[in-house]
Amino acid sequence: MSKGTLYIVSAPSGAGKSSLIAALLERNPTYAMKVSVSHTTRDMRPGEQDGKHYHFVDKAHFETLIAKGEFLEYAEVFGNYYGTSRVWIEDNLNQGVDIFLDIDWQGARQIRQQMPQAQSLFILPPSREELQRRLTTRGQDSQDIISARMSKAQAEISHYDEYDYVIVNDDFDLAIMDFKAILRAERLKQDKQAAKYGAMFAALLAD
Amino acid sequence: MSKGTLYIVSAPSGAGKSSLIAALLERNPTYAMKVSVSHTTRDMRPGEQDGKHYHFVDKAHFETLIAKGEFLEYAEVFGNYYGTSRVWIEDNLNQGVDIFLDIDWQGARQIRQQMPQAQSLFILPPSREELQRRLTTRGQDSQDIISARMSKAQAEISHYDEYDYVIVNDDFDLAIMDFKAILRAERLKQDKQAAKYGAMFAALLAD
Repeated sequence: MSKGTLYIVSAPSGAGKSSLIAALLERNPTYAMKVSVSHTTRDMRPGEQDGKHYHFVDKAHFETLIAKGEFLEYAEVFGNYYGTSRVWIEDNLNQGVDIFLDIDWQGARQIRQQMPQAQSLFILPPSREELQRRLTTRGQDSQDIISARMSKAQAEISHYDEYDYVIVNDDFDLAIMDFKAILRAERLKQDKQAAKYGAMFAALLAD
Repeated sequence: MSKGTLYIVSAPSGAGKSSLIAALLERNPTYAMKVSVSHTTRDMRPGEQDGKHYHFVDKAHFETLIAKGEFLEYAEVFGNYYGTSRVWIEDNLNQGVDIFLDIDWQGARQIRQQMPQAQSLFILPPSREELQRRLTTRGQDSQDIISARMSKAQAEISHYDEYDYVIVNDDFDLAIMDFKAILRAERLKQDKQAAKYGAMFAALLAD
């Protein structure tokens, strides 16, 4: 059996990343795939579930995990820790499961250093106008808030060239097909196929 | 516009390589793609067309092209030259056309050295029994001839691990889908997307 692949997925807010990943998990039951669930020390919000949205742990426990080197990456944001568990990801990859890791460009850099075999995807909206529209239609926001969101989105977008693949999410179904093509092609890479078909390849070459 | 990709495609006899490439060209009119046509000094056979099966040239002309460095690779087989034109391939790649280059492992090695950005695919039959069957059903061949074909196929197969991708041609339609996924994923690579969407990316990042 071949190992799974770790897919780092980044995007600015408004690119449709979460919907794409959700649709992919629903529509593509052929391959085993999971979304990585981060650890955090922030409080659970209404509607959130432990183990689904985050693994909610207290600060002391999180710091123990840091000390044990359990995180592929972690960050402190507004006094709360967020981190990605190395053990869970490696266990799943070893079982042949593909893992999606939804993370920003800074986290992506840390993950690449730790797991150079990871593949990274950046998802973009189809135009500036569409991005502006998606960042605005969330409610009656002030111009300042919209401008701040736009600046934050642009800061993320400016790192798209650090990624292996770029998907432009204009037509949702085409973007899903793009994503699926990347997953399928990755499984056809020589080392993955050699692991999957090792016995058959040996039989082909036997005297 | 982004440049096309050069796909080196190798396989043992009996893997179905020619049928796969032909079906791909017929069924996938979305992308511009062509098969590289080799130059040769051997005589034209009945049913062959100049410019379709080969570019048929005489020995003196071929040797002039060698001297001018016009070939990405060439070889002499039973006194005849066979070669791959660099100019034709580069012109097409520059026009955004994907090129398939049907070549054995030795030629593939030469091409990789000259064009390191090429992607290489190896196509395999699904089992030893099936390979044997495909090598036999061509007629009433002697056991010696079948054995010789099998040895030649195995010599080619032994180099599968030098390729970027491996397609196992068990179900023909699935193998086509594999091939198409590789082509689609390749076009989603960051540098290709940056070339295709340069203006849009600049607009996303503008003040």
